Amino acid sequence: MRIAVIGTGLIGASVGLAARERLGAEVVGWDPDPSAALAAGAVDRAAGSVAEALDGAEAAFVAVPVGALAETVAAVLAAAGERCVVTDTGSVKRSVVAAVDDERFVGGHPLAGGEASGAAHARADLFDGATWYLTPTQRSSGLRLQELHRIIAGLGARPEVVDPETHDRLMAAVSHLPHVLANVLVGQASAVLGGDRMPAIGPSFRDATRVAGSHPALWDEIYAANAEALAAEIDQALGELADIRDRLRAGEPLGDWQALAAERRAALTAAAAGEAQAELRAVVPNRPGIVAEITLTLAREGIGISDLSLGPAADMATGELAIWVPEARAARARELLAELGLAT
Amino acid sequence: MRIAVIGTGLIGASVGLAARERLGAEVVGWDPDPSAALAAGAVDRAAGSVAEALDGAEAAFVAVPVGALAETVAAVLAAAGERCVVTDTGSVKRSVVAAVDDERFVGGHPLAGGEASGAAHARADLFDGATWYLTPTQRSSGLRLQELHRIIAGLGARPEVVDPETHDRLMAAVSHLPHVLANVLVGQASAVLGGDRMPAIGPSFRDATRVAGSHPALWDEIYAANAEALAAEIDQALGELADIRDRLRAGEPLGDWQALAAERRAALTAAAAGEAQAELRAVVPNRPGIVAEITLTLAREGIGISDLSLGPAADMATGELAIWVPEARAARARELLAELGLAT
Repeated sequence: MRIAVIGTGLIGASVGLAARERLGAEVVGWDPDPSAALAAGAVDRAAGSVAEALDGAEAAFVAVPVGALAETVAAVLAAAGERCVVTDTGSVKRSVVAAVDDERFVGGHPLAGGEASGAAHARADLFDGATWYLTPTQRSSGLRLQELHRIIAGLGARPEVVDPETHDRLMAAVSHLPHVLANVLVGQASAVLGGDRMPAIGPSFRDATRVAGSHPALWDEIYAANAEALAAEIDQALGELADIRDRLRAGEPLGDWQALAAERRAALTAAAAGEAQAELRAVVPNRPGIVAEITLTLAREGIGISDLSLGPAADMATGELAIWVPEARAARARELLAELGLAT
Repeated sequence: MRIAVIGTGLIGASVGLAARERLGAEVVGWDPDPSAALAAGAVDRAAGSVAEALDGAEAAFVAVPVGALAETVAAVLAAAGERCVVTDTGSVKRSVVAAVDDERFVGGHPLAGGEASGAAHARADLFDGATWYLTPTQRSSGLRLQELHRIIAGLGARPEVVDPETHDRLMAAVSHLPHVLANVLVGQASAVLGGDRMPAIGPSFRDATRVAGSHPALWDEIYAANAEALAAEIDQALGELADIRDRLRAGEPLGDWQALAAERRAALTAAAAGEAQAELRAVVPNRPGIVAEITLTLAREGIGISDLSLGPAADMATGELAIWVPEARAARARELLAELGLAT
């Protein structure tokens, strides 16, 4: 089969690699600069135009920045054959889906990629086990959806059909709102601190603001594309924050609210990892190899670490390590850490 | 000199250890259960009452939970000698300072401790290099402040005098508000997801919600003790969030706002670490020893890691590693990672 990839950054080039390796597909790419994708072996050849890339293609993946999606999808559909299924990989779906009225189009969004970008970081296994949302509409052809579903499963991902509104609301809640709140937090800390004074940043602040200000041009587009759903999530946050503020001022206890958050977090992390996770914390000496020693010791017993965070203490001689391991192995992990002289 | 420590949890017992080892002080402790502090060698002896602990003491550290501070400080002052300086170690200062009208009292707050608790985790070097806020008032004796300042420097910390209002506002901004927002985020994600469905959690959500629901009883007290300053920070967050929501709905670009957050975050992390930090990200295979290899390789060249975060990909076969290193060493760190086969 022949697959067209329009936009050969990290996602597009990884689609190309996986399609070539796993589906035996011929992949034709189009990109303003296809050199990195060619060098990475992500495409069999680079087309000189979108129309050329679509020539004879049975499926087309549009993997361009969110701001250029609607326009590019339209151009691809104009060039695509009658039976070609066209999808995109944008992290926001409602806007692009609303802009398209074509039975060959099914919106998509793979939950993979992370912060690195560019075809140089592309990997055939990028989508292994990853959720890949598909957002067909009433207009989408069932046949095209079925084909796309099969191709995406063939790339290693787990396709999951969801309506565009739910998708965008979900992304607003678990990705876009955290970015907005991170920005708010650094703004308020700057205002209090004045810039030049800063005590040791506690782990809560460091963790909560890690994504503050990331990729301004990219995030400008993401915010804009998901403006409606994000604004709705902000509205909801405003409601709860105002309620908490009122309860604080009224002197009401917040222990129940805090306990409810603990329950919710435990449920979310368990659902994400497939089993309940436990958090272990230990103060570790900041000497070479200590993280090595800990991770190796746990790895030798087959205890998987699903999350790890290391923050230095003020003297930079010690750090606080937080690791998440399956709850069923937590007791053993504690023993192993104790054998290394670490109290948890 | 004789020092009384009232409440021998992690902080109190660490004060005891440091005072004995570094100041050659005789430390008398009082705690409902002093056994762990005695076992840790944090006190020379345990007193049977607060009055007995204060007998002959030149300084007293009140290290009890925030909710019990005002009451305990009052009891300690009633038992303390005329020249005994009394301080506390609570993370909120305005409420306790307002409740006390005594020239022997100076409020305090060491920025140390982390999540572990109990005398079993106490260390003589817990305060090394840590900021230790002191919040004297007009009423505090200059002589008592001077003595306390010297003792705290002797424990290894860096005493810094600040007014209680600024202190509480700072803590509200860099610690209490991040906890509140983490709770809000897990609440909204739970609402969208319904509980049983959960895609791979992205790093932004995982990082932002790591402290959601932590220690409900403890945080109930902290929120209550700093209710006013925290409510003011929430008010400010409400204002900015409403503004961002309005700009989203009006279709205004947010790239400048995102870029401003990037600047602020860079300034804050540079101020905290003492020099500008750069963030490197790499996808790493999830095999035993990989974090070891990376951290050891950087350590061998003397490149300090000020922050480290590892999140697993959906297939659990790879993870995304984010590390922060001094900007001046970032180029060399990238080279070293490249030699390990990791693209950044």
